[in-house]
Amino acid sequence: MRISGDLMYKWAREIYSYPRSLTGDGVRYTLNYLKSLLPNLEMIEIQSGTKVFDWTVPQEWTINEAWIKSKNGIKLVDWSHNNLHVVGYSTPVHRMVKREELLEHLHSIPEKPKAIPYVTSYYKPMWGFCLTHETLLRMNDPEYEVYIDSHLFDGVMNIGELFIPGRSTKELLLTTYICHPSMGNNEVSGPVVATALARTLSELGDLPYSVRVVFAPETIGAIVYIHKNLERLKSSVVAALNITCVGDDNAFSFLPTKYGDAYTDKLAEYLIEGKNYPIKRYCWLDRGSDERQYCSPHVDLPMVSLMRSKYNEYEEYHTSLDNMEYISPTGLAGGFQVNFAVIDLLMRNHIPVSTKICEPHLSKYCLYNFKASSGVEKRDNRILNFLTFADGRNDFIDIARLANLKFDDVCWIANELRRHELIYVKCHSDPGLELARV
Amino acid sequence: MRISGDLMYKWAREIYSYPRSLTGDGVRYTLNYLKSLLPNLEMIEIQSGTKVFDWTVPQEWTINEAWIKSKNGIKLVDWSHNNLHVVGYSTPVHRMVKREELLEHLHSIPEKPKAIPYVTSYYKPMWGFCLTHETLLRMNDPEYEVYIDSHLFDGVMNIGELFIPGRSTKELLLTTYICHPSMGNNEVSGPVVATALARTLSELGDLPYSVRVVFAPETIGAIVYIHKNLERLKSSVVAALNITCVGDDNAFSFLPTKYGDAYTDKLAEYLIEGKNYPIKRYCWLDRGSDERQYCSPHVDLPMVSLMRSKYNEYEEYHTSLDNMEYISPTGLAGGFQVNFAVIDLLMRNHIPVSTKICEPHLSKYCLYNFKASSGVEKRDNRILNFLTFADGRNDFIDIARLANLKFDDVCWIANELRRHELIYVKCHSDPGLELARV
Amino acid sequence: MRISGDLMYKWAREIYSYPRSLTGDGVRYTLNYLKSLLPNLEMIEIQSGTKVFDWTVPQEWTINEAWIKSKNGIKLVDWSHNNLHVVGYSTPVHRMVKREELLEHLHSIPEKPKAIPYVTSYYKPMWGFCLTHETLLRMNDPEYEVYIDSHLFDGVMNIGELFIPGRSTKELLLTTYICHPSMGNNEVSGPVVATALARTLSELGDLPYSVRVVFAPETIGAIVYIHKNLERLKSSVVAALNITCVGDDNAFSFLPTKYGDAYTDKLAEYLIEGKNYPIKRYCWLDRGSDERQYCSPHVDLPMVSLMRSKYNEYEEYHTSLDNMEYISPTGLAGGFQVNFAVIDLLMRNHIPVSTKICEPHLSKYCLYNFKASSGVEKRDNRILNFLTFADGRNDFIDIARLANLKFDDVCWIANELRRHELIYVKCHSDPGLELARV
Repeated sequence: MRISGDLMYKWAREIYSYPRSLTGDGVRYTLNYLKSLLPNLEMIEIQSGTKVFDWTVPQEWTINEAWIKSKNGIKLVDWSHNNLHVVGYSTPVHRMVKREELLEHLHSIPEKPKAIPYVTSYYKPMWGFCLTHETLLRMNDPEYEVYIDSHLFDGVMNIGELFIPGRSTKELLLTTYICHPSMGNNEVSGPVVATALARTLSELGDLPYSVRVVFAPETIGAIVYIHKNLERLKSSVVAALNITCVGDDNAFSFLPTKYGDAYTDKLAEYLIEGKNYPIKRYCWLDRGSDERQYCSPHVDLPMVSLMRSKYNEYEEYHTSLDNMEYISPTGLAGGFQVNFAVIDLLMRNHIPVSTKICEPHLSKYCLYNFKASSGVEKRDNRILNFLTFADGRNDFIDIARLANLKFDDVCWIANELRRHELIYVKCHSDPGLELARV
Repeated sequence: MRISGDLMYKWAREIYSYPRSLTGDGVRYTLNYLKSLLPNLEMIEIQSGTKVFDWTVPQEWTINEAWIKSKNGIKLVDWSHNNLHVVGYSTPVHRMVKREELLEHLHSIPEKPKAIPYVTSYYKPMWGFCLTHETLLRMNDPEYEVYIDSHLFDGVMNIGELFIPGRSTKELLLTTYICHPSMGNNEVSGPVVATALARTLSELGDLPYSVRVVFAPETIGAIVYIHKNLERLKSSVVAALNITCVGDDNAFSFLPTKYGDAYTDKLAEYLIEGKNYPIKRYCWLDRGSDERQYCSPHVDLPMVSLMRSKYNEYEEYHTSLDNMEYISPTGLAGGFQVNFAVIDLLMRNHIPVSTKICEPHLSKYCLYNFKASSGVEKRDNRILNFLTFADGRNDFIDIARLANLKFDDVCWIANELRRHELIYVKCHSDPGLELARV
Repeated sequence: MRISGDLMYKWAREIYSYPRSLTGDGVRYTLNYLKSLLPNLEMIEIQSGTKVFDWTVPQEWTINEAWIKSKNGIKLVDWSHNNLHVVGYSTPVHRMVKREELLEHLHSIPEKPKAIPYVTSYYKPMWGFCLTHETLLRMNDPEYEVYIDSHLFDGVMNIGELFIPGRSTKELLLTTYICHPSMGNNEVSGPVVATALARTLSELGDLPYSVRVVFAPETIGAIVYIHKNLERLKSSVVAALNITCVGDDNAFSFLPTKYGDAYTDKLAEYLIEGKNYPIKRYCWLDRGSDERQYCSPHVDLPMVSLMRSKYNEYEEYHTSLDNMEYISPTGLAGGFQVNFAVIDLLMRNHIPVSTKICEPHLSKYCLYNFKASSGVEKRDNRILNFLTFADGRNDFIDIARLANLKFDDVCWIANELRRHELIYVKCHSDPGLELARV
């Protein structure tokens, strides 16, 4: 049932070349492809010009063609070869331009001469090209023909949303963004891992918590989504993960919440300490994706990110070098796994409460000499230790820590005790919900 | 007034050989002897078959005689020599048994060949003998005659309870158990030290807190007692000590409460740090006596244990080697002392509150130049330091820590200030009770 | 506007020689001089014999002349040369005294033979002289004439109080004492620095908090003031500084509140860590001035002291060596500065709250690429980091710590954001008060 890294990599290749930006066909192509994998994905459209808090939804932007030609008619830079070549939201242009003027519209990175940088100008109208510094150094003609066949018009912004109902109306929120053009780790890894998580959780079914997955353009898309759903988000979301930068093979990265004290932090911290992930911890000042909005004042959702190489922190970031070779099937599989593990922990971490006063008479239930999940039968105190902490103050993670137990053993014991009605199990973040199985 | 180790050792010797188990004559003999020392001890009887939470009070068990004879009529194992020789609650038997079958009913410890182990089977009917491994190795006859003259019948379980009224209805609870046959540290030390504490506290009289001492069979006796008294226990008990394993001469042991944050923990911790007891600290996972019941979920009493060698942690434990030679008068005296010290601290640790706004005019009371308990007169700030912390937030232990004072000096200052009505003293765990002397 | 060390030193010299004690002309001369600098200073009189909590206001004491003459008529000790020569509150005397009897009335310090000690006897009637040990050693005549022309009568105790209204009715309390005769660090430094602070704050005007400055005799004056104003003090004072020992050139000293957890502690701690003051930290047990009363049980004001050499801790303390040479203009300037800095922090440390849900669209306000107070323009995250913590939980100090910002930059950002109505600013200790400028 778990989705393989190879399959995710195949999906990533499919959406890699769509010309994504905040709006336009590239976003719609991407969402349509994801809908083919997630039939219940709902498409949301927001009109250009809609006011959302301090922001306005921008015009829709499409682009068909763009190039720079030398005087002798050779295309030196061609958008059809790499959609990073045009500054996002460039206004249309077609004319001869003197070299000096053109240079003001060109973006390259002298220190990374083979990389095309990723540049946008969503809210300040302008046009521009991005190219390798090697190409730029060869452009010595006095004049060039530039052509950008783009359109800015009142259209829509597109967002995809998937809801997987659980036993509780409390929700896990997964978010990812779909607004960068052809990049690997810092774009396509996010949607494909989020899709794989959504499919896996849908197929598992009967989850304690509901799950909501949002595919939206970064920043403005998150703001639009929050604007439409603020009250529900604040009342329902008990844990949240931003799925981003989950595709390469380097070490894992963890970005906690603002104060590091949210329930999602507890889950992630327990996972990290238990699994011995070689993980790099960042702090809130290192944030840079949609947690900026989801954790902002007055929104304050418990969102963390479990990543591979974190945005801003690897050399290929925001350039053409963050491509399909930079990510890999094993990288995606690892990104999936770490996020699935924290979700699995959320879905299994609950609060047991003893139904008895004093210790139960365990030998009546053949639970005094106790066969653990390891299969070896011997007298041990694990059930008694579990029960002594089943006082309503502790969840399974707490009990695992307090009683030096493995989380899997805690769940195994909880199921045994629940089966004999020696405990009842309250949903951690929805205490009114009693769980019949953990 | 303090009871000597020699006297406690004499009491221990008296009750050592009574054939105790969960029920029966051995328990009654023991309680009757204790009643000769504690005239106010009340005897409680619970009928066999009574339901108590998840448990049922077992049948009463008595035994008159038991042995294993070789074919030539020699008694190889004889209960009248040591009452550990029969598995507790053995069903009656009298027949010839083939050696192979007999072996399944014999218990010995190959690694401790001179020790008779202590074995019981309270809730699964069976018969069995316990013997030294040396004896077992000599039993090579093909057949033996076994005889156990025991009886299981609907009778009673016995518990003893003593109440010493104090100025407050809030109580200190002392518990100990009376269900193991002839063993020293892990049986008779407990009842005799508890008896000595009860006598000493009764004679002191006029205590701030009431004291209740419970002598009951371990586990089922504690459960019965909790079942009868749950509401009172929860509303009245402010500190609790389980008096067990208080008889040998080895280092002291401390078992805290579940979370280590109860008032009894504070008292014990302060005592330990102040007296420099060479004490071994255990944790809640090392528990094993009646704190299992008294601190269980929904009961949650603040019970700790201050022991000599802790159950489970010494080689002689639960064998015939834990005998009257293993314990000693000095061992018992030390066990008494450490528990009396924590009780004394409880009875003296209260909350002073200044009756004045601003500093009092101490020189009016000749308290500005101040003669300490040491007898040397000099100007010092001890009274002012006491008073600055007498703001209702701190008890005497807190003030001793905050002001770098000895506890005895704190009490001395409190008495001086109270005498001049510069403070009033609230009972720590019964703030409505004002104390006229500390 | 800041008052120079030279000016403060000039003021100090003016009041240095007034013969201050708990009461009398010396106190009135001092207050009248201070009123010439602080026209709004209000004079308060309390009748001798007034009951204040556990105390009684003492009689007024005046002294005109006092000396010891040798038989040949030479004045060996003369109050008109140094007003430390007479024990404070000496009863009148004029007679011939045998050397042996006289010695019981003389105070000197053998280890500091050139120092006249400072001695008082406010509540136990007696007379005495203080002199250098060198002088004492030369007094070998069999008899001396002693004369103290003092008067004790029902009069008044004098206190000065200045109120500087701010936008909030919540107050900063500054206290200092005016009851020691001619001493430098442990007397005149306090009133002159308090006066300089009062003048500076009055001239600044439009302060967020009101300020109250109290000039009173130590201990009994503080008790009188508390007795008159207890309810207002408890409801209004949000921070308090005792201005004492602020005149010499040695390192700074900090005395925190009783538990070190008051708001004034937070301000002082932040100041100390930020300014890298070479500061010696004392603890509550080292207290010794009016914080004894202002922080006493049932009063509990948040008073700290930021000093130069602390009372009790320098060799010249409470002797004639703590004179105008022991203090200096730079010493006074430093004492002013450290106290002004903590007041300035109080007046500027408030709680910002974002007016927007999600991040604001900063580029609309030209705040995304951000010119810091340093003047260098570059893209940075300081405004976003400020805003993410502007959730109502943090004051500016917290934000400076959380976002690794300088306090001045925090204020600069706050003003920019408030100007654009992207935040509103709540007064830290009067949350109903919104501040239009920080």
